[in-house]
Amino acid sequence: MKIIRSVQNKQVKAWHKLATKKGRILQHSYFLDGWHLVKEALLSGQKITQLLLVPNSKYTEKLKEINNGKNEMVLISEEVARTLSDTPSPQGVFAIVSIEKPVFSFAEVKNGAWLLLDAVQDPGNIGTMVRTADAAGFKGVIFGKKTADIYQPKVIRAMQGSQFHISLLEGELLDYITEMKERKIPVFGTELSKTARTYTEVGKFENFGLIMGNEGNGVQSDILKMSTANLYIPIKGKAESLNVAVAAGILMFQLKK
Amino acid sequence: MKIIRSVQNKQVKAWHKLATKKGRILQHSYFLDGWHLVKEALLSGQKITQLLLVPNSKYTEKLKEINNGKNEMVLISEEVARTLSDTPSPQGVFAIVSIEKPVFSFAEVKNGAWLLLDAVQDPGNIGTMVRTADAAGFKGVIFGKKTADIYQPKVIRAMQGSQFHISLLEGELLDYITEMKERKIPVFGTELSKTARTYTEVGKFENFGLIMGNEGNGVQSDILKMSTANLYIPIKGKAESLNVAVAAGILMFQLKK
Repeated sequence: MKIIRSVQNKQVKAWHKLATKKGRILQHSYFLDGWHLVKEALLSGQKITQLLLVPNSKYTEKLKEINNGKNEMVLISEEVARTLSDTPSPQGVFAIVSIEKPVFSFAEVKNGAWLLLDAVQDPGNIGTMVRTADAAGFKGVIFGKKTADIYQPKVIRAMQGSQFHISLLEGELLDYITEMKERKIPVFGTELSKTARTYTEVGKFENFGLIMGNEGNGVQSDILKMSTANLYIPIKGKAESLNVAVAAGILMFQLKK
Repeated sequence: MKIIRSVQNKQVKAWHKLATKKGRILQHSYFLDGWHLVKEALLSGQKITQLLLVPNSKYTEKLKEINNGKNEMVLISEEVARTLSDTPSPQGVFAIVSIEKPVFSFAEVKNGAWLLLDAVQDPGNIGTMVRTADAAGFKGVIFGKKTADIYQPKVIRAMQGSQFHISLLEGELLDYITEMKERKIPVFGTELSKTARTYTEVGKFENFGLIMGNEGNGVQSDILKMSTANLYIPIKGKAESLNVAVAAGILMFQLKK
C-alpha cells in the first residue's frame, strides 16, 4: 500500500485546509487528531471519509480491527503526521469526518438538561463546556447564533469526543427559551450581579436549561429578561469573576438532579 | 519624551525574550499585557521595573495617575505594541514586573483553604485554577515541584491578576501535607475512581487542603496514600473525565465553608 510522504501532496494540502473555517465549509468535513478521538468517532458511527495512519504504529492493528474494512485507510509518513498535528508528539492516527451541523429542533428540548451558549467566543471554553455537560448528564448543548464555530481544532480538542455522546443543537436562544417555558421547563440565566439569586438556593432539576454568556459581556440583557430566574455564584475573594467554563461546571453539577 | 518605534530596538528585543523561560530567568522579570493586569500590579504594590505605554491612548491619564511618578514609563509605538502582545487588538499598556518566586512556607498553611497542584502541565489550567481559588476564598495555591512555570504568558493571562490577591507557595507537596495533617487540617486528594468518596459527602471546611493532579495521570499514588481522604466527582454521562480546572472549581466551591 502506497505511503504519502510529501507534504506537498494534494491530499495533504486539502487536510491542512480543514484547520480553517473556509476549508471545512468547502470540504464539509473536519479533522480529528489522536487515537482516543478517532476511536470514539468510529465506535459512535460517525460518517468518516478517510482514516490516516502512520504505518507500523502501536495503533495500526487496533485501528484495523475497529474499522473492520469499513472506511478508507490512507498511510502517511511520520513527517506528514507532524505537519498535520498540533501536538509535539503526534500519535499518527487521524480521521476526516463529515460535518453533521448542529440542528434546529424544538422536539428534543421537551425533556432533559440543556446548556445554552450565548455568544461564547473562546474555543477552549466552548469545548470544555460540551465535555462538562456530557459528564454532568446533560442531554445536550444549544449554540446561539453568535457562538464560535464548533469544528475548530481547539474546540474539537477540548470536547474530548463528547460531541459523539450528547445532542448539539443550534438556533435563536430566545426561541428555545420560549419553547421550554411553555412546557413548564425552568431556564436559568447567569448574571454577575448580587441582585441575581444565589445558585445554591434554587434546588435540583431533571429538566431545565442553563444559559452561559460571552466571556466579556455575559448573557445578553434581552435573554436575561426572558429567563425563569437568573443565578449568581458568590465570589468570596478579590477575583472579579470566574472563567465561564469553570462557572458552567459549578452550576451544572449543582443544578442537575 | 522619546518614543521607541523600532522593533529592532535593544529594549524591545529584551521584552520579547520574557516570553521564554530562559529570558525570564536572566532578567528576573515577567511581562504583563493589558490595562486590567497592569492596574492590579500597581495597586497591589508589585515591584515594577518599567511601564510601557502607547502615547495618547485612553489609558495614558489613568496610568499616570495610579503610577504617580513612582515607576519608569517608556513610550512605545503602536507597531511595537502589536509585536509585544498576544492579542489581536492590544490595549497598548504593559508592565515589566520583578519575579517574586513562590516561597516555601510552613507557617502560612496553619489555617485557611489551600489548593495543592501536583504536576499540572497546561498553562491555561494552572492560571484558571489560581483565579478560581481566589474567587472561592482560598488563602493560596501550593505548586508542587513538577508543576509548569507560572510566569508563562498563558498562565499570567488565565490568572487574571489573582497572583496579586492570594499566596503562592512552592515545595514538596508531601512535606506540606504532613505538616497540615500534624495540625489536624484535612487534606483531600482527588481520584477518578469509584472507590474514592463522593465529593458531596465530606462536608464543608474553613481550613483544608485540596490536591489536584496532572491532566493525564491524576494525583501521584504516594500523595494519594498520604491524604486524609480521596474524593471523586461522579460522572453521569459518557465523558471519561472532567477538565482539571473545571473539577477543581466544582470541588473548591463545594468544600469551602
